[in-house]
Amino acid sequence: MRVALDALGGDHGPAPNLQGAASALRGLPDLTVVAVGEPGTLEPHLASAELDADRFEVVPCVGSVGMDEKPTVALREKPECSLAVMWKLLAEKQVDAVVSAGNTGAVVAAGLRTRQFLKPVKRPGIAVPLPTSAGRSVLMDCGANPHAKPEHLFQYGVIGAVYAREILGIERPRIGTLNIGSEEGKGNELVGETHELFKSAGSLPGEYVGYVEGRGIYHGEADVTVCEGFVGNVVLKVSEGFAQYLLRAVGEGLVGAGVLGPEDAMKTVGGVGRRFAYQATGGAPLLGVDGACLIAHGSSDGDAIANAIKAAAEMVSKDVNGQIVAALGG
Amino acid sequence: MRVALDALGGDHGPAPNLQGAASALRGLPDLTVVAVGEPGTLEPHLASAELDADRFEVVPCVGSVGMDEKPTVALREKPECSLAVMWKLLAEKQVDAVVSAGNTGAVVAAGLRTRQFLKPVKRPGIAVPLPTSAGRSVLMDCGANPHAKPEHLFQYGVIGAVYAREILGIERPRIGTLNIGSEEGKGNELVGETHELFKSAGSLPGEYVGYVEGRGIYHGEADVTVCEGFVGNVVLKVSEGFAQYLLRAVGEGLVGAGVLGPEDAMKTVGGVGRRFAYQATGGAPLLGVDGACLIAHGSSDGDAIANAIKAAAEMVSKDVNGQIVAALGG
Repeated sequence: MRVALDALGGDHGPAPNLQGAASALRGLPDLTVVAVGEPGTLEPHLASAELDADRFEVVPCVGSVGMDEKPTVALREKPECSLAVMWKLLAEKQVDAVVSAGNTGAVVAAGLRTRQFLKPVKRPGIAVPLPTSAGRSVLMDCGANPHAKPEHLFQYGVIGAVYAREILGIERPRIGTLNIGSEEGKGNELVGETHELFKSAGSLPGEYVGYVEGRGIYHGEADVTVCEGFVGNVVLKVSEGFAQYLLRAVGEGLVGAGVLGPEDAMKTVGGVGRRFAYQATGGAPLLGVDGACLIAHGSSDGDAIANAIKAAAEMVSKDVNGQIVAALGG
Repeated sequence: MRVALDALGGDHGPAPNLQGAASALRGLPDLTVVAVGEPGTLEPHLASAELDADRFEVVPCVGSVGMDEKPTVALREKPECSLAVMWKLLAEKQVDAVVSAGNTGAVVAAGLRTRQFLKPVKRPGIAVPLPTSAGRSVLMDCGANPHAKPEHLFQYGVIGAVYAREILGIERPRIGTLNIGSEEGKGNELVGETHELFKSAGSLPGEYVGYVEGRGIYHGEADVTVCEGFVGNVVLKVSEGFAQYLLRAVGEGLVGAGVLGPEDAMKTVGGVGRRFAYQATGGAPLLGVDGACLIAHGSSDGDAIANAIKAAAEMVSKDVNGQIVAALGG
């Protein structure tokens, strides 16, 4: 099991990436981590990370894509950047999976450029596991495909259901189409045609439950909710911003009412905040590429990176891709 | 000042509507409420509502649109329903404003059908005031226009800014375009072309601040954020569902940690929940129609209806529409 890690990705440089690699190596005896980075930049961090030298390799690159850089421009100007080299390793089958906490748009763009998609997959998509009142559910696509067609969304339902079954342990996932109403005829052409594709589908790795409204996502009305990338990305980021706003407001309310001191209040609401943090879930997989790809949050610490590496390894060992291909009739 | 009220709208029938009317009449001496409803249905509730008979009228209708009915079908089958009659009163200038807690899709569809738009307005949109870390901001459109063009979104920026200035008291509102990244070139054609229209606009009733990401909405990065109706509706409903999920989780966390009893916990988190409830803001205006239209939440109680009526009256007395027309150069 070989996982390539973008050692330069994320907000905090190489340190959390190498700490995460060391932690994942300790947990998974069959794992080898291939860190892609500039040797000079990694060098100062290598000793303190306590890496198992037998199962850790460095593959050199030239530069990296900044978190705020425009992906297409950055990838053109830095053809040997860490992301590009990481994906090259996957395309050449030198690794089974890739993990990055770097610029999400650039991770996706560099990956799609390799055109190494699973054969029946039209367009890969980002699947994000979200916490709900009922457990966990998957939202797909969250931004990989800005020009989704009904057939793409239909495939996301199938792909997401396989992921939910294999990784989230939901035996027969309920699949829904995100819409602005639950009645027939509501919404735009894209969701209407997607809805028809699901209704007329022969066999699915789950049960199609129809339209799901925005408020149904966190109520757990479906285990897999499909939407086009723009909408999914907005849902994800609105949730992130709203959670910060809301939890701060609750914390201040508790302090203001004299119920808790500032420290205890932050601890209490922070515990809830962590439930839907990327750290716990190990990031969002880009599903549909030939190989596993986990995108970790830019703010990932060592634990989050370790979880992302483990999540990537789990996808490989469970052959999620093989089952996606089978479910799509490939 | 005459406001037509859909007395049959909402989840709880005539009672909260009539209580709200009575409360609004007590607060606004120049107000007359025209309640649209089936006289037989309203009758049992009239006495207890303590309405000022000199400033309260009933206009009869036949039937109403259920909260789960498909708007187009319902409006075709019930041409004399409360919503249709309410909008007819506005179109005939018998009232200055309309208020309904009914089926949002039907309120909008019945309104758009009258084609009584402000002259320069291409398509009316729903503006929703949201709470943010920085105060309040407006999201527009939240579902009235499912086929938005760049010019529509541009107009929503202008219209929303006038609303934010006049009703939220923000002197020079910052206008942003909702997108999935803040760099140039991100997102789809709709947001790209909208962005260009704002950048090349001669004069605006505010300052254009460029792209705003999902997480920026609740951080208050803009005072007015424009998006197409599908996206806005999803943002709104995701927020609603997420807030319920998150606040319940915090409440359970507080109880579990032994910090508060179940009742106090619910009271504390409920206080935060109320901040972004429709009740406080009086509902969402459908802006761009000739006359004021406030859409209250289906679950509105008497106070919420009273606030919606007052909000409608404020839009009329401040001549928000006149200023929208002026800002659009009409």
